[in-house]
Amino acid sequence: MKLHNFNSGPSILPQPVLEEASKAIIDFNGTGLSILEIGHRTAWFQEVLQEAISSVKKLMQLNDDYEVLFLHGGATTQFMQVPMNLLDTEDTAAYCDNGIWGSKAAKEAALFGHVNIVSSTSDKQYTYIDKQFITPDNAKYLHITTNNTVEGTQWHQYPETLVPLVADMSSDIFSRPVDFQKFSLIYAGAQKNMGAAGVNLVVVKKEILGKISRSIPTIMNYQKHIEAGSLMNTPPVFAVYVSMLTLRWILAEGGLVEMEKRTLAKSSLLYNTLDSLPVFHPTVAKEDRSQMNAVFFLSDKTLETPFLDLCKQEGMIGVKGYRTVGGVRVSMYNALPLESVQAFCQLMEYFASRKG
Amino acid sequence: MKLHNFNSGPSILPQPVLEEASKAIIDFNGTGLSILEIGHRTAWFQEVLQEAISSVKKLMQLNDDYEVLFLHGGATTQFMQVPMNLLDTEDTAAYCDNGIWGSKAAKEAALFGHVNIVSSTSDKQYTYIDKQFITPDNAKYLHITTNNTVEGTQWHQYPETLVPLVADMSSDIFSRPVDFQKFSLIYAGAQKNMGAAGVNLVVVKKEILGKISRSIPTIMNYQKHIEAGSLMNTPPVFAVYVSMLTLRWILAEGGLVEMEKRTLAKSSLLYNTLDSLPVFHPTVAKEDRSQMNAVFFLSDKTLETPFLDLCKQEGMIGVKGYRTVGGVRVSMYNALPLESVQAFCQLMEYFASRKG
Repeated sequence: MKLHNFNSGPSILPQPVLEEASKAIIDFNGTGLSILEIGHRTAWFQEVLQEAISSVKKLMQLNDDYEVLFLHGGATTQFMQVPMNLLDTEDTAAYCDNGIWGSKAAKEAALFGHVNIVSSTSDKQYTYIDKQFITPDNAKYLHITTNNTVEGTQWHQYPETLVPLVADMSSDIFSRPVDFQKFSLIYAGAQKNMGAAGVNLVVVKKEILGKISRSIPTIMNYQKHIEAGSLMNTPPVFAVYVSMLTLRWILAEGGLVEMEKRTLAKSSLLYNTLDSLPVFHPTVAKEDRSQMNAVFFLSDKTLETPFLDLCKQEGMIGVKGYRTVGGVRVSMYNALPLESVQAFCQLMEYFASRKG
Repeated sequence: MKLHNFNSGPSILPQPVLEEASKAIIDFNGTGLSILEIGHRTAWFQEVLQEAISSVKKLMQLNDDYEVLFLHGGATTQFMQVPMNLLDTEDTAAYCDNGIWGSKAAKEAALFGHVNIVSSTSDKQYTYIDKQFITPDNAKYLHITTNNTVEGTQWHQYPETLVPLVADMSSDIFSRPVDFQKFSLIYAGAQKNMGAAGVNLVVVKKEILGKISRSIPTIMNYQKHIEAGSLMNTPPVFAVYVSMLTLRWILAEGGLVEMEKRTLAKSSLLYNTLDSLPVFHPTVAKEDRSQMNAVFFLSDKTLETPFLDLCKQEGMIGVKGYRTVGGVRVSMYNALPLESVQAFCQLMEYFASRKG
């Protein structure tokens, strides 16, 4: 049976990336060694890392004010690492609370300084993005989550602010062209649009660093990682390699313009189908719908289990909603073919015709 | 040309592990999905994680006082995470300074509390282990590095102490049977004897946790990781999988007794050859020699480059000494076949016959 992988992360990766990675585990680029066995200070790995960095710079059209780092951990590590590096004990950081991950990020920041929740949509179970809020001028930075993987919302226009903008882009990075230079710091766990779990991308504008008095543990210090060229300690070699391959694939396929074209084709098909079938019940505000993760429910709650069972039976992987939210979630990352969304929509229509 | 991989880490892995991992990148256990694409909360990954944990417990013969965690990062992350979890601001921790990594660990600990360097062998470039030192009874813990990868020394009998013993075992873990229950906390980056870079093993005696007043960032909190069963956030799935395969291989080959037998065969051959050839100049105290990493020099310094060139030419990978130490380093981890050490020793003899 053909499987369709709608996992929310770790999630589907491009087939050529998997084939190349599989080969490299046995013989990396004809060296006779596995990618798992080569030293991280060899010219071989230097090339991998440099290509990954330059691909990020190219895709983001970054100028030299920015540095690109590949660090251990996931976005959850950055929830702590960002305030540790940017927020002094007496400082205040502004956070938008638009979903479970942003909320967790704010909680970690409160361990390092003051946190001002400038906006929260928890009143309506995070089913919309509040765009009408004020960021105090004295905030050290404003933190947003560009796409809420769990709740299925996404910022389609970023907030205008005078303070440095910090973004968790884990689940929509490289899905569309963005003016990345609006941001002072961008971070993303790799395991959605960019590779395998176990590495973080951090893009940082150098001018925001070195402004706090706290002593930062070496391994958490962005400045020290910049000085060491992402090689302060043994990096997660294989995870960096898979990111490099995925970035190479994005560029070869046509870059972010092409990724957006595909994303729009998939998400508009999905949402159009959803809106046409009353058996399904979308709760997210239309203007804030995520192009990456469509979250919805069954109008009749008792139909949820039969629908999820049917999905399973038909090879639709990973469509169960997040454990705290329930319902259905369809993740449509870069590597997901349109054909998978078409198959899912046909299944929705079939289900509606039987149960609608 | 047959390559012999003496890399100090990332280093050689067992061939069956590489083959299994390569297959799993395309199709994990016949699921039709790549190991890189499966959710970390699926039963599939749960099985991987549980086997990894139970293999560690079996190899270490741990009782239920201990928990086994697989965490993001490398040992360098633990340099910070250990004191963050165990050392209050007014507390003192005792550190043995027997090499570059232990020295770095002590430096990070000083950011969290007081550090008492109870022993240092920096007077002789870390070429021996000082076993005559006193640990103050009020120390929160005593930290040692069981094997010094860079300098080529190893503890062959662990210090007796009344305070909790904490060890960085990154470069000799699972190379021999050890009374692991002597330790209150053991950590190890995976990329030597246990797998690929990008994951840390942490084994912790539960009773030492929860005794400090500091607020610990969630992702750094051992207690929270225990509660979440190593699944607080997306773990480095593939790196955990490779560790599981490597641990399975160690068990199948005969466990730690067999690993020690092989280690002794390799290291005694290497050291006997070294001692018999005056062209080479070992500087490490004989009784403290590492069975994992043999570090030595050329008696005539001008012969170093010709020897390293010859090694390269003959397919001996990764035998250049660490950048701050120089000379030659031969790493003999579990997966290195005896045949590679035999080939290296023949090369030493050949070189001695020409230049000795």
